[in-house]
Amino acid sequence: MSAIVASGMTRFGKRKEDLLSLGGESALPILRKYRSDIDFLLVSNSYSGEFNSISGINTLLATYLSLDGVPSLRVDNTSGSGGTAIFLADMLIKSGQARAVLVTGLEKMSTMDTRHVTSVIASLLPEEERRQGGPSLPSLAALLAQLYMRRYGASRESLAQVSVKNHRNGAANPYAHIQKEVTLEEVMQSPVVAEPLRQYEFSPISDGGAASVLVVGDGGDAESFTDRPVYIKAVSLASDSASVTARGGDLMGLEAVRRAGRNAMRLSGISKPDFAELHDMATVLELVQMESLGGLCEPGGEAWKMVLEGETEVGGEHACEHQRGGPQFKGPSDRCQWRGAGRGGLLSDKERMRW
Amino acid sequence: MSAIVASGMTRFGKRKEDLLSLGGESALPILRKYRSDIDFLLVSNSYSGEFNSISGINTLLATYLSLDGVPSLRVDNTSGSGGTAIFLADMLIKSGQARAVLVTGLEKMSTMDTRHVTSVIASLLPEEERRQGGPSLPSLAALLAQLYMRRYGASRESLAQVSVKNHRNGAANPYAHIQKEVTLEEVMQSPVVAEPLRQYEFSPISDGGAASVLVVGDGGDAESFTDRPVYIKAVSLASDSASVTARGGDLMGLEAVRRAGRNAMRLSGISKPDFAELHDMATVLELVQMESLGGLCEPGGEAWKMVLEGETEVGGEHACEHQRGGPQFKGPSDRCQWRGAGRGGLLSDKERMRW
Repeated sequence: MSAIVASGMTRFGKRKEDLLSLGGESALPILRKYRSDIDFLLVSNSYSGEFNSISGINTLLATYLSLDGVPSLRVDNTSGSGGTAIFLADMLIKSGQARAVLVTGLEKMSTMDTRHVTSVIASLLPEEERRQGGPSLPSLAALLAQLYMRRYGASRESLAQVSVKNHRNGAANPYAHIQKEVTLEEVMQSPVVAEPLRQYEFSPISDGGAASVLVVGDGGDAESFTDRPVYIKAVSLASDSASVTARGGDLMGLEAVRRAGRNAMRLSGISKPDFAELHDMATVLELVQMESLGGLCEPGGEAWKMVLEGETEVGGEHACEHQRGGPQFKGPSDRCQWRGAGRGGLLSDKERMRW
Repeated sequence: MSAIVASGMTRFGKRKEDLLSLGGESALPILRKYRSDIDFLLVSNSYSGEFNSISGINTLLATYLSLDGVPSLRVDNTSGSGGTAIFLADMLIKSGQARAVLVTGLEKMSTMDTRHVTSVIASLLPEEERRQGGPSLPSLAALLAQLYMRRYGASRESLAQVSVKNHRNGAANPYAHIQKEVTLEEVMQSPVVAEPLRQYEFSPISDGGAASVLVVGDGGDAESFTDRPVYIKAVSLASDSASVTARGGDLMGLEAVRRAGRNAMRLSGISKPDFAELHDMATVLELVQMESLGGLCEPGGEAWKMVLEGETEVGGEHACEHQRGGPQFKGPSDRCQWRGAGRGGLLSDKERMRW
């Protein structure tokens, strides 16, 4: 078993600092105490080449953090990169390859305008599919929203309510990109991005960094680092087809989320998480992920009702925190997220925070 | 213990096929037999964003290879990406997270002209250092060559002889980018890249892909896949400072190579490898790596004499195969490399093939 004993985070948003500085801002405070313990560095980053004209970000960051000589690598799994890095860190520790892993995640996207960023991100869809149908990630989310509402009779307001809730959480979070509450009316009157979804239902383009130290959790090791370690009972990683049109089965059951969730719950012995942190870039994905994950609600159109009934609010029966792209909608606080994860003991790729 | 039970490779060079096709060309032949066994995909790639405008290469490749649903991630460690992917695959298997990992490596660099490629690759050096001294990787290699010759009295010809040997190996290798022998005179008369190093002493810009399947090596599992598994006794990963000027100690002792080598030899119980595959992009690095690695020769100016005496030729006492960037100088054949690795049982990051 591994355990998280320290973590740090930058404020997210349009930051003037460069990529390495954001990594430093999140990691240096915890390294003051733990630098000499770190024996592996994982750097979660997808776009340093495209957005920052930097390659070899892991060795550059190691040097920046005065961790020269510590073995390192860069982990990329697009939106799942942070969770994938946690998966690897946990494995490094469990397999005895490392005793203290610094996991960092950093991205600086605001170097390009929205059109370029969207185009870079859309390049994770198969080229043939892009040529034929011209989908982007927002347009796919919009299609899913239409399908969700039509099939389950979900109200348009229920989707927007996800945004209201997450903005409320963001307003209480000093690290969030957007720290203001919005009303249902404001969400519904924000500009249309892809029918029916509107601007306030999407994540913004954001810069930021986060860092955590994972250590051996068995035998009391973690307690020598902190008196409040967060033990990781299970990490699970799953993938689905890059081609949405080629996905078998039901688009409404996100297969990767379903598998990762089932597996993490099986491994951890937890069947009813009391906190879930989901990640994707549009409101509708919070609902569809809730239904795919298992343990939070049944599939088949339950999630939108739970949102309207306030069950996914902080303090609600199934508190759901939705990380969307840049962490616009971070929870009440960084600490709360860790505690939540600790309480539930459940960290699986798709619901793990994005960094 | 893990074991390699299958591998494939494209011919390298300026290829007209796109990045995913190169991945397919190397992996699809072995997947015909092993597809249903694969339960994890590692994709080693550094520059899909910069050179091919593609993100999410691991899920795109999974879909291309009909491996949808298999968990995957992209591994980047610049020139050490292939070796790092082998390190992770070995760990996935040893920790029980996977039973059969497809490790692929692919890069298509010829989409850009030399100036752009050089500039992208130079971005792995710290920006401040680039601003101050304007180094690129070739110019750093040239400085190392000057230092090596001056300090050890190494002849200029000994460096060029590394190129002659490696071209000879390449000429016998149907996968190599450049499959022709060159004379010492031709090397010495090729255009200067960075004094004293010349064009034929550097790797070319190259496109290509490679793939291997790693499975559980204990308990006879590997023998159910092939009657000639290559068992991996040890894999070791080490890093050094990204800033050459910040490196402590002696520049002539490449600290990452030294550490990875020592550790791999300690773990495997092999102190005198009979085959080494080194990777870097210029002749002088083969000499300096030989001396840093341990087990091949003593440090302090031994390697250049061994080259002149033919000891590093195929069949020589310390056969050294030098992978330089694009595999211009691949050994007599792909099979020979695997057999060599198998015989020695030594696979460590820096001397592991680049893909």
